[in-house]
Amino acid sequence: MKAQVGIIMGSDSDLPVMKEAARILDEFGISYELTIVSAHRTPDRLFQYAKEARDKGLKVIIAGAGGAAHLPGMVASITTVPVIGVPVKTSTLSGMDSLYSIVQMPPGIPVATVAINGAKNAGILAAQIIGSFMPEIEKKVMDYKVSLKNMVEEKAAELENIGYNAYINKMNM
Amino acid sequence: MKAQVGIIMGSDSDLPVMKEAARILDEFGISYELTIVSAHRTPDRLFQYAKEARDKGLKVIIAGAGGAAHLPGMVASITTVPVIGVPVKTSTLSGMDSLYSIVQMPPGIPVATVAINGAKNAGILAAQIIGSFMPEIEKKVMDYKVSLKNMVEEKAAELENIGYNAYINKMNM
Amino acid sequence: MKAQVGIIMGSDSDLPVMKEAARILDEFGISYELTIVSAHRTPDRLFQYAKEARDKGLKVIIAGAGGAAHLPGMVASITTVPVIGVPVKTSTLSGMDSLYSIVQMPPGIPVATVAINGAKNAGILAAQIIGSFMPEIEKKVMDYKVSLKNMVEEKAAELENIGYNAYINKMNM
Amino acid sequence: MKAQVGIIMGSDSDLPVMKEAARILDEFGISYELTIVSAHRTPDRLFQYAKEARDKGLKVIIAGAGGAAHLPGMVASITTVPVIGVPVKTSTLSGMDSLYSIVQMPPGIPVATVAINGAKNAGILAAQIIGSFMPEIEKKVMDYKVSLKNMVEEKAAELENIGYNAYINKMNM
Amino acid sequence: MKAQVGIIMGSDSDLPVMKEAARILDEFGISYELTIVSAHRTPDRLFQYAKEARDKGLKVIIAGAGGAAHLPGMVASITTVPVIGVPVKTSTLSGMDSLYSIVQMPPGIPVATVAINGAKNAGILAAQIIGSFMPEIEKKVMDYKVSLKNMVEEKAAELENIGYNAYINKMNM
Amino acid sequence: MKAQVGIIMGSDSDLPVMKEAARILDEFGISYELTIVSAHRTPDRLFQYAKEARDKGLKVIIAGAGGAAHLPGMVASITTVPVIGVPVKTSTLSGMDSLYSIVQMPPGIPVATVAINGAKNAGILAAQIIGSFMPEIEKKVMDYKVSLKNMVEEKAAELENIGYNAYINKMNM
Amino acid sequence: MKAQVGIIMGSDSDLPVMKEAARILDEFGISYELTIVSAHRTPDRLFQYAKEARDKGLKVIIAGAGGAAHLPGMVASITTVPVIGVPVKTSTLSGMDSLYSIVQMPPGIPVATVAINGAKNAGILAAQIIGSFMPEIEKKVMDYKVSLKNMVEEKAAELENIGYNAYINKMNM
Amino acid sequence: MKAQVGIIMGSDSDLPVMKEAARILDEFGISYELTIVSAHRTPDRLFQYAKEARDKGLKVIIAGAGGAAHLPGMVASITTVPVIGVPVKTSTLSGMDSLYSIVQMPPGIPVATVAINGAKNAGILAAQIIGSFMPEIEKKVMDYKVSLKNMVEEKAAELENIGYNAYINKMNM
Repeated sequence: MKAQVGIIMGSDSDLPVMKEAARILDEFGISYELTIVSAHRTPDRLFQYAKEARDKGLKVIIAGAGGAAHLPGMVASITTVPVIGVPVKTSTLSGMDSLYSIVQMPPGIPVATVAINGAKNAGILAAQIIGSFMPEIEKKVMDYKVSLKNMVEEKAAELENIGYNAYINKMNM
Repeated sequence: MKAQVGIIMGSDSDLPVMKEAARILDEFGISYELTIVSAHRTPDRLFQYAKEARDKGLKVIIAGAGGAAHLPGMVASITTVPVIGVPVKTSTLSGMDSLYSIVQMPPGIPVATVAINGAKNAGILAAQIIGSFMPEIEKKVMDYKVSLKNMVEEKAAELENIGYNAYINKMNM
Repeated sequence: MKAQVGIIMGSDSDLPVMKEAARILDEFGISYELTIVSAHRTPDRLFQYAKEARDKGLKVIIAGAGGAAHLPGMVASITTVPVIGVPVKTSTLSGMDSLYSIVQMPPGIPVATVAINGAKNAGILAAQIIGSFMPEIEKKVMDYKVSLKNMVEEKAAELENIGYNAYINKMNM
Repeated sequence: MKAQVGIIMGSDSDLPVMKEAARILDEFGISYELTIVSAHRTPDRLFQYAKEARDKGLKVIIAGAGGAAHLPGMVASITTVPVIGVPVKTSTLSGMDSLYSIVQMPPGIPVATVAINGAKNAGILAAQIIGSFMPEIEKKVMDYKVSLKNMVEEKAAELENIGYNAYINKMNM
Repeated sequence: MKAQVGIIMGSDSDLPVMKEAARILDEFGISYELTIVSAHRTPDRLFQYAKEARDKGLKVIIAGAGGAAHLPGMVASITTVPVIGVPVKTSTLSGMDSLYSIVQMPPGIPVATVAINGAKNAGILAAQIIGSFMPEIEKKVMDYKVSLKNMVEEKAAELENIGYNAYINKMNM
Repeated sequence: MKAQVGIIMGSDSDLPVMKEAARILDEFGISYELTIVSAHRTPDRLFQYAKEARDKGLKVIIAGAGGAAHLPGMVASITTVPVIGVPVKTSTLSGMDSLYSIVQMPPGIPVATVAINGAKNAGILAAQIIGSFMPEIEKKVMDYKVSLKNMVEEKAAELENIGYNAYINKMNM
Repeated sequence: MKAQVGIIMGSDSDLPVMKEAARILDEFGISYELTIVSAHRTPDRLFQYAKEARDKGLKVIIAGAGGAAHLPGMVASITTVPVIGVPVKTSTLSGMDSLYSIVQMPPGIPVATVAINGAKNAGILAAQIIGSFMPEIEKKVMDYKVSLKNMVEEKAAELENIGYNAYINKMNM
Repeated sequence: MKAQVGIIMGSDSDLPVMKEAARILDEFGISYELTIVSAHRTPDRLFQYAKEARDKGLKVIIAGAGGAAHLPGMVASITTVPVIGVPVKTSTLSGMDSLYSIVQMPPGIPVATVAINGAKNAGILAAQIIGSFMPEIEKKVMDYKVSLKNMVEEKAAELENIGYNAYINKMNM
């Protein structure tokens, strides 16, 4: 199946964070491709990737990067495919650098930024975007929201039932 | 024409910022509705707005707010329509508070955050999202990108031609 | 006994922090209920909780949340019961995001914010609020303040007595 | 009438901000006293004020200060009356210093912190606290919330009616 | 004369800041070219500029940008010519965003970052770099340092002579 | 009279801030010298100044600087005379850069840092230091503290007397 | 011997940091007293301590505290003895809160602030202050500076001699 | 061979970070010297080092320091040799203090600042600077860039080939 979502990251060290985007797309049954594209070490690859994105049929691109984090913005500068940016946490500035580099794009070239290390939410956002035009995906997002609700309500019921001391003991087991 | 995009803001004081989203959607010929929904002063209105968004046919919601800025995230918690959040600059913390409140959403409920005061980019992002599924809109986004490119190139040519002193003089006129 | 204080949190992962509010209320003999209410995953539950709070007889609500942390502010938007917000420390921005999201509420809808991870203080503040109208609770708060004073004075006396080297050795034992 | 709320501030330069607390208490018909107490220039006055607060019958103290902003925390250290702290915006660090100094109190001594320059909200919070024990005040807070809601809904209706261009023109008149 | 330094900026709105780099290079008699290259609006132009930089004979590139500020880093990713980055002050985050985006480059691709709005220093740094290999330029930098020293010493002498009140009066004239 | 305090600053643009240190020393009758010493533009002058400070009889040095703000720390590295550092507010980072550069000195070389733009306090601190060894100066500092107290109490009395509306009207006249 | 320096801290949990002040004073042969004084839990003790400080003969007070960190400023508000403030690192905001609370004192009441966790430097600063009036202490500070210099030069010589690889190996042993 | 690059650091505790500059220069075959120069503990050594740098034949100086971090700026104030500053991460403010102290230099005295802990990039930047005037070094930098590109492309190919789960498993082995 042709990929609807492209997931890219600046380095394989971002993979433990970025794999969450892939996992949730798997859950929603949305096809994707996943690879490494470094804005700084493979600028030509970045250009080629971004230039071909629309014609490949990608509906959304998810791009994660840390530090200077130019990948999401540079892809967005080249393609009309909407780009979701994931600021990856850094060891020095905790991802505040990544966040500012990704979100503070100039007028004309937006990047849809999610939370620091928010790759799962990037996947959900991609599903919501696709779901606005494909009802069967929208339904899956709605089901997912319901499952989140149910999970919270079950935990709340158990916490109310057994009390916080017992609940914490269970958490620690 | 039924609105494809909903533009909402927490207060009419956000309108000078948020109107830019409407203006660019006008330019792209995308239908929208625009109103005030305060998360904190009209929570019922917020709930109703978010609950009806999908059935009304909205494909994207653009929500702007400043300070605690709960509007985008709360709308996103209720609907499956993708929500673009615009952090509005504040007089005390320059919108850093708005930015953190909007972008740092928990796993499960993303908000597509743009730059502080980035309402124009919110409109362009909405167009890109719609454009992924409607080629005639995608074409308009591409034309817009080309127009940006042309404008920069014209300015660059003039700057190279007349020199920076003359250019600055013209800017100051 | 009908609960005088409601303690809620956005996720059970906040419980190790938030249980301190419950513990100190136990110490003061103030009745409370404690449960999970997620602003983003259970918005309907949030609305219902907040709408019933006054009629249930709650005098104070303590709400803890991390990151975007909309729970305290959204509860405050719906009920007239005073809401104490506890910003929970986050792994990326250390709770600075939680703090800004909770404290920077717009005119009209205050949240009484305590320190990051300050759930114990939230409990004490609830006791002080109740104590302003129930002298027997005020007395307990005063006794608590005296016990804090005594504890510091005892430690100070020991430190002055045995010297800092011996004191640190005892701390490390 | 004996004051139920004490409003204090570190300097008369804080008065343009802090008067909003008084104004809203006037609106709610809550009695208050208002004066200057500087933690740093009048420490004895601070001690005396805080030591007498409970016996004077104060139910809540609102304390505003900027910069190092020790006033709210020091009052809270001495009295059991709940203290609402208002971080006043500073010319250098925009009130981030005031906010941290007021909100980051150690375990045992809470200050109920509101937004930077949030004196109006401090007044509303005081009313909510009193309202938890005096139904006629609670009713006024509820009426106030309704008036906020109505005001937003009226503005929203007008904005929807006349469109954003006309609305902005009216704002600028 | 073939340009030794390339001065580029992301937008003509950066020109009032970036012209200082040109002015100081004029003072040092170092040839330069100056134009607009937007990473986000003219990515192809950026690639072309960076790819040709070495062959054109540029010894140093000075690149200024604000906000997400990808220009310096992307040029550095493509060429081996050393790139000096000038973070331009922004209206929302005061250039802290520009600074982080420019300085926090990943291993392999450095950008020589100067102070926010530090275009003059970018020009001086370019002169120092060239001066390390061209003694006549190094001499000019040394003369410039001496002129700075002399200017400070003259001001110091006058201040000591006439006193601070008279000095301030002269400053205000 | 031989100067007891040396007041230095990195640039004459710091004089409007730093003159406050001189004014308060005048008030206390403490002799001082005041001049410009730039760490970066006159490093030799800095060395000479710091090396002679002790032998000249200076008891305290007050050094103000903005941005990278190396002056106080470098003087402290050379002399044993205690150095009070005044972080001067900057147009980009509001003096947060100056503050960090001055206060975060490594083990071995302290700088006594006061608030951003806190030159007046630097003068008072110098007086307190001298006052610890010269009772007549200590008495003046005590008198000053009393005058501050009296001024606050007078303002408080007037505010209590005429009410906040009348007081604000007087402030605005 | 009567104490020349008072070392106080807000909690015994600050002792591992604050003991460094005592150690270096021991090294300089300066007499001191060391105890716990909590601004928030023992406000009366704070007042008493500060009021007696001058008459006890203290020349300098070193006060360490974390978070809201009111201790140094409140002591300074009461006594004319110069107060050196040590911002103690916190687990949430890394001591940035402590730093702002201590350094941003209002005009009239300075605190001589050192680096976060900079207790050793507080001790050295106290020695420098005393040394300005007692040549035998000044000589010890000068000797200490020379010892620091010698230590660095020895390390530098060894590093130059054995190379960085061997040096790092020795560090890791 | 005479050193072309001088690598200095404020303390041997910076060596684990700063050695990366040496390693990459080794890789490029660029001669260097490496030693410790503390701005604060060995100011005379700093002066001497900086004053001799040009005559020794250094083309670039790399200076690393943490906290107040005055070393790079002070060296730059004395010599015309271009100085690359490496902000070393600190335990309290994560190197944000080092970064501001190094990058925010005043007009006239630039420091070419790289990322926090970015010593490797400092070495590469030095090579690029030298490479602008020595083609054989420029070629090595270009080869290095190609090797980075190849490494990313190989990783990307493997990731695309074996999938992210297998790739992560290999990373964890």
